[in-house]
Amino acid sequence: MRRKAAVVGGGVIGAGWAARFLLMGWDVAVADPDPEAPRKVGEVLANARAALPGLHDVALPDEGRLSVGTSLAEAVAGAEWVVEAVPERLELKHRVYAEIQRHAPRALIGSSTSGFRPSELQENAADPARILVTHPFNPVYLLPLAELVPSPANPPEVVEQARAVLTGIGMHPLLVRKEIDAHIADRFLEAVWREALWLVKDGVATTEEIDDAIRYGFGLRWAQMGLFETYRIAGGEAGMRHFIAQFGPCLKWPWTKLTDVPELTDELVETIAAQSDAQSGAFTIRELERIRDRNLVGILRSLKGYAADPRDGWGAGRLLREHDARIGRPAPDLSGPILTGARAVPLDWTDYNGHMNEARYLQAFGDATDRFMEIVGCDADYIATGGSFFTAETHIRHLGEVHAGERIEIRTQLLGAEGKRMHLWHEMRAGGALKATGEHMLIHVSLATRRPSPPGETVAARLAEVWAAHARLPRPEGAGRAVGAPR
Amino acid sequence: MRRKAAVVGGGVIGAGWAARFLLMGWDVAVADPDPEAPRKVGEVLANARAALPGLHDVALPDEGRLSVGTSLAEAVAGAEWVVEAVPERLELKHRVYAEIQRHAPRALIGSSTSGFRPSELQENAADPARILVTHPFNPVYLLPLAELVPSPANPPEVVEQARAVLTGIGMHPLLVRKEIDAHIADRFLEAVWREALWLVKDGVATTEEIDDAIRYGFGLRWAQMGLFETYRIAGGEAGMRHFIAQFGPCLKWPWTKLTDVPELTDELVETIAAQSDAQSGAFTIRELERIRDRNLVGILRSLKGYAADPRDGWGAGRLLREHDARIGRPAPDLSGPILTGARAVPLDWTDYNGHMNEARYLQAFGDATDRFMEIVGCDADYIATGGSFFTAETHIRHLGEVHAGERIEIRTQLLGAEGKRMHLWHEMRAGGALKATGEHMLIHVSLATRRPSPPGETVAARLAEVWAAHARLPRPEGAGRAVGAPR
Repeated sequence: MRRKAAVVGGGVIGAGWAARFLLMGWDVAVADPDPEAPRKVGEVLANARAALPGLHDVALPDEGRLSVGTSLAEAVAGAEWVVEAVPERLELKHRVYAEIQRHAPRALIGSSTSGFRPSELQENAADPARILVTHPFNPVYLLPLAELVPSPANPPEVVEQARAVLTGIGMHPLLVRKEIDAHIADRFLEAVWREALWLVKDGVATTEEIDDAIRYGFGLRWAQMGLFETYRIAGGEAGMRHFIAQFGPCLKWPWTKLTDVPELTDELVETIAAQSDAQSGAFTIRELERIRDRNLVGILRSLKGYAADPRDGWGAGRLLREHDARIGRPAPDLSGPILTGARAVPLDWTDYNGHMNEARYLQAFGDATDRFMEIVGCDADYIATGGSFFTAETHIRHLGEVHAGERIEIRTQLLGAEGKRMHLWHEMRAGGALKATGEHMLIHVSLATRRPSPPGETVAARLAEVWAAHARLPRPEGAGRAVGAPR
Repeated sequence: MRRKAAVVGGGVIGAGWAARFLLMGWDVAVADPDPEAPRKVGEVLANARAALPGLHDVALPDEGRLSVGTSLAEAVAGAEWVVEAVPERLELKHRVYAEIQRHAPRALIGSSTSGFRPSELQENAADPARILVTHPFNPVYLLPLAELVPSPANPPEVVEQARAVLTGIGMHPLLVRKEIDAHIADRFLEAVWREALWLVKDGVATTEEIDDAIRYGFGLRWAQMGLFETYRIAGGEAGMRHFIAQFGPCLKWPWTKLTDVPELTDELVETIAAQSDAQSGAFTIRELERIRDRNLVGILRSLKGYAADPRDGWGAGRLLREHDARIGRPAPDLSGPILTGARAVPLDWTDYNGHMNEARYLQAFGDATDRFMEIVGCDADYIATGGSFFTAETHIRHLGEVHAGERIEIRTQLLGAEGKRMHLWHEMRAGGALKATGEHMLIHVSLATRRPSPPGETVAARLAEVWAAHARLPRPEGAGRAVGAPR
């Protein structure tokens, strides 16, 4: 039976949580009094379907079932996890928790609040131990960070349970060990936001100039290393102590205006809104969301690196690899063509023609080749001993288009394995239809000499085992074909 | 004759500037009293060579000549641009400017300072009009942002000249219209840095937890949109006015501790340094630099999108496209195989085997196909009318390895063009050696029906023109070959 999560509040944050749980295989019930909620949740889910599954290089579980209604009681019934994502009013949240705990007394309640500490949320609750803060970042279905903030009223097993749920849906629960106002990340956002308001108010910079100052400079650094690791590099070989000693005095300089808060006059609001219109008004919010998602998918996948790379990925890309490993791949059945790939087409693999770029067919086939190598024992450990297969020759037929978010499967037949040569045949299908074939000749090489060399004994034996089964399979239509040959 | 820049101060910032100017085709002379300067500049240049050229989808100009010495007078002689990157002491900078203006009175001086305003730098100068701030971000050879800060003493033509030089080396000069302490970006860095110090000092979070809070959350947002565009999305369809109205009150909450500056006691310095060692000590600074560069190249290229995509790219990726367009491509000579690609291998195209991933051969060939299509009139404008060529079939031979930073060239021969079919032959060379061949059959399709359709008249005529020349060329060795066929 699938696990069930409830989401109370179907705004952009609640809908983002719903999409993440659904795409990770949970059933989700959303409660929201807004009659527009089903449409709004559906729009976020559509964006999430195109973006999230393609972050992973394995197939996610089948999507769960979604229901959206107005009844909180129905939504939380049978849920083991309840997301609270209602407006930031404490008395409202208290009322919501009372009702949740009446109908689902065993459920864990994770509040999306940025403005309240868990001990404030827990005041007067029937069961304070099951309420804590799990603060996400928009878009919830793509950004892995969730600040997990317990109070002393939450026993360790509740914290552990929350951590397991968040990890299970592909997030990074950052345990905030001391509850403080705004947790951790929003303290920075708040500091930057105030400074930005001053710069606009004082006419030093427009909203667009401020955004450019961020995204052409330190924003690129912070997407992959944070503040301290970046400064560690800036300190150079002399290290972090040197960096702080050098820059410490600068702290005394009068560089921020944050001792005071600019008054949000109508004039300032209008200035910001007008500058923002000038900057981004050419796009609707929906368009900006899709652009953002494509960018984030591209950034996250670039931090992840090539699927078969034994290196770990970096930052948020490493988190994705860890989640892929948790999901795992099915055990191979060697008796017929072997399932060597099952994945969704990533957003950033599609191009201006609206379909998967031709090079990504070879990337998917290359990943399948790597999976086949792993199956026959040519895995990271083997490669570390100095041998590997290099592709010498490739023939691809593009037989149909595939689009972002579409699930593809690749099955691989061994066409031959003698000496240093390994001859592979990949078939890529989507929705049962054959979309592409790939025929590849690989040569085993010594990584020291970069020259052909025979594979190690275990790999050779395992290849022979597969060949014993696959030699009996019919030769696939199209194998041995040259470009432009008649059918 | 190549243009000349001088760099005074060969630390990590000065060396980064030197690398960027060199790789964009300028001669560079570095002056630094440190006897280790040649080695240090050389190390930064090696990193830059592997990283910067691959950001571009066209060949950069030939690298300029580098000299590193101790004499400022020799370095600045004949330079039209002088980078000042000496330590942040005002009297030192004043002395350096005096000496520069003695030996190169016509040169523009761009100071890398984050701590001083241009009017402070200009005090008592022989020619204040030629001194301004051009504040870059580490690594200078990858991050496009340069804050260009003039004072009223700088005439408009000097500012324009500075802007042209920075743009010409692929940077985004962000004109800071009012000089203020710390310019723009460092005001944010400063605000965040102080907040981070408090969090560490109060034991709320470690350096690693703070970095994770950034790079798994808002850091990913800020790499592609900035602060205001992100919040515009958060405001949803209701827009920026709604967002500010909603979040305005939060500004009054006691969320930052920035009214005060934490004292940098030995104990706090030690705490930060020890936490940073625990977080990043597994890597040397050089290793962290290379990891950072690979990450940044991946992020920047993902923001750029596919080379032939008529869409603009986004953020820093759009800047790269604009620079590619400024550099341009050579006019095609149709009489023989046509130069359809000249580029460096990007860092993120290489995999764990240390060479270009097999899929990137097809990406490079796909880009070459797009360039060939453009040459025969199947360009963005034509595609917008509803026709395009789709690749139906591909055959690649991998004949040699290529590595990050290596320059590759692709030449394309038309093997046939009849009706809807276009038969292409690509050869990829590096250092004169044949590294790969690609044979491709493309079919002209209607983008409305996704079915084969004849190309438009202009495209057909232009293809016939190329075919008239290429039909006479010898058929390339390997054309028509199937995978695994004997040589």
